[in-house]
Amino acid sequence: MLKLQPSIQDVERAAEKVAPFAHRTPVLSCESLNQRTGYQIFLKCENFQKVGAFKFRGAINAISRLDENQRSRGVITHSSGNHGQALALAARMNGISATVVMPRTAPQVKKDAVAGYGARVVFCEPTLEARESGVAEIQAQTGATLIPPFDHPDIIAGQGTAALELVDEISDLDAIVAPVGGGGLISGTSIVAAAQENPIPVFASEPTGADDAFRSKEANQLIPQGQTNTIADGLLTSLGEWTWPFVRDKVQRVITVSDKETIEAMMFTWSRAKILIEPSAATAIAAVISKQFDLPAGARVGIILSGGNVDLDRLPWVLA
Amino acid sequence: MLKLQPSIQDVERAAEKVAPFAHRTPVLSCESLNQRTGYQIFLKCENFQKVGAFKFRGAINAISRLDENQRSRGVITHSSGNHGQALALAARMNGISATVVMPRTAPQVKKDAVAGYGARVVFCEPTLEARESGVAEIQAQTGATLIPPFDHPDIIAGQGTAALELVDEISDLDAIVAPVGGGGLISGTSIVAAAQENPIPVFASEPTGADDAFRSKEANQLIPQGQTNTIADGLLTSLGEWTWPFVRDKVQRVITVSDKETIEAMMFTWSRAKILIEPSAATAIAAVISKQFDLPAGARVGIILSGGNVDLDRLPWVLA
Repeated sequence: MLKLQPSIQDVERAAEKVAPFAHRTPVLSCESLNQRTGYQIFLKCENFQKVGAFKFRGAINAISRLDENQRSRGVITHSSGNHGQALALAARMNGISATVVMPRTAPQVKKDAVAGYGARVVFCEPTLEARESGVAEIQAQTGATLIPPFDHPDIIAGQGTAALELVDEISDLDAIVAPVGGGGLISGTSIVAAAQENPIPVFASEPTGADDAFRSKEANQLIPQGQTNTIADGLLTSLGEWTWPFVRDKVQRVITVSDKETIEAMMFTWSRAKILIEPSAATAIAAVISKQFDLPAGARVGIILSGGNVDLDRLPWVLA
Repeated sequence: MLKLQPSIQDVERAAEKVAPFAHRTPVLSCESLNQRTGYQIFLKCENFQKVGAFKFRGAINAISRLDENQRSRGVITHSSGNHGQALALAARMNGISATVVMPRTAPQVKKDAVAGYGARVVFCEPTLEARESGVAEIQAQTGATLIPPFDHPDIIAGQGTAALELVDEISDLDAIVAPVGGGGLISGTSIVAAAQENPIPVFASEPTGADDAFRSKEANQLIPQGQTNTIADGLLTSLGEWTWPFVRDKVQRVITVSDKETIEAMMFTWSRAKILIEPSAATAIAAVISKQFDLPAGARVGIILSGGNVDLDRLPWVLA
């Protein structure tokens, strides 16, 4: 099958589908962060998005692409994180059924969240194999369409709508920074950035404890993520076959940050900008603070804050 | 001296003075909060304001009213909280000197914050008498103008500009809720609410452990606050002679909330709306959640989130 990468037209089409359902999230600035970095920083607040993360955009767009027959059979996924919640809500808002396969061992709060958005939750053993066979079994019964968390052109186009809103609101950006996990957000962002009259360099932030994008880019070939060790629980997955080419060809640089840097950036953002971001989002702040990011003073830097889903009873600086 | 209460014209004049210096803070909504309360809630986010609190508005306005002679002699206050920081920054932005008299025992973080905004910090013994005599001594030396934290018409008019922006952006509000401590914010808010073509009822939120406004309104006379017992550290002070008449005549009701309700509302706002608010601001959320607040379902309720200055190392639900 010929694989056509999603284009700026796909992102623009996605924006029309996403707009009626999603928040147009605000772009905030924070004087303390500007002073600390020497840049003019523009924070695209996807932590304020429905379900608390940009993932809602991709889920809505993927659902909008289903035909009537597919809609009647419902959708399914096996993400227990933000994507599971995003798909559950996006499906409910479109009046179609959703099934989320989750490991029995998932935290109760995640089970409740997915169920709270009206999805059917099916439990399986806590292995990838069990999840995948669980999905396959239900698909065989119901004909539900699998909506993957990132490695799909409709998901990528949907996630790109956050950057589209950012460049629409803030002109003349010198760089856009976003975290990379599976790569849906950074891929969609890079489509938008490259399509500008003056293309905008895109930087990806990644934890050192899950640095497959960094290593893949260094090696110029896709290296799957092995064992992970990071608090940025949204960034554990490997790049996929759809997202890797964007990271390879369209992302200027992957900046890796330690969990210590991420926690410090998270605390700084909470205490100064007064907004709650999750560790995954904080990697992007940490990347811009780090010495690896060395744009000229005064540069206009957009940062996509990917999400804000944290457990307030388990804050990293309290646990440490 | 005849005391002329500040009017809507004073607030509108203040808005012109405040606008060039302050953030026009966003008004956010939160679906979870709407669902929980049954209202349509509009959050005016003064936690995103400069120095993290609405106090910056009053400080800017008070400074804008000084004549050249007064400006050359500088300003002084003895608040160690948000007002001290607000005055320090407002003075610096206007190129005039500021002195903040603080108790030796104030937390280092507050001393650093005030000094960081460029004010001269003078330490005194930790009593109100020592603070006041410290201020008087410096005034005698320098001729600096005392800018009080709340009980002054220019401060009240300045704080009213938050509500002015709120009603400008959100039409047809059925109520506005804001916390009451010294009463500067609620007084300014009530001026704006009363001046609308359809006057908007104003509700004040107050902690049960510092409920002088509630008791004063019940007794129809100003009852100063005695011993306090609440985590809402911005709401400890008594009403003053300028603010009491507004609470008496213009505030529909004072709703008192327990610290337990405040902490729960604070966690709810952090985890669902993804914004950091301080306990004082959370009292307003708690008030709207409480059964005492009983507007018809679907009512449009504006809430002024007064500030977001919290110590992340000392969160109430972690300490408890």
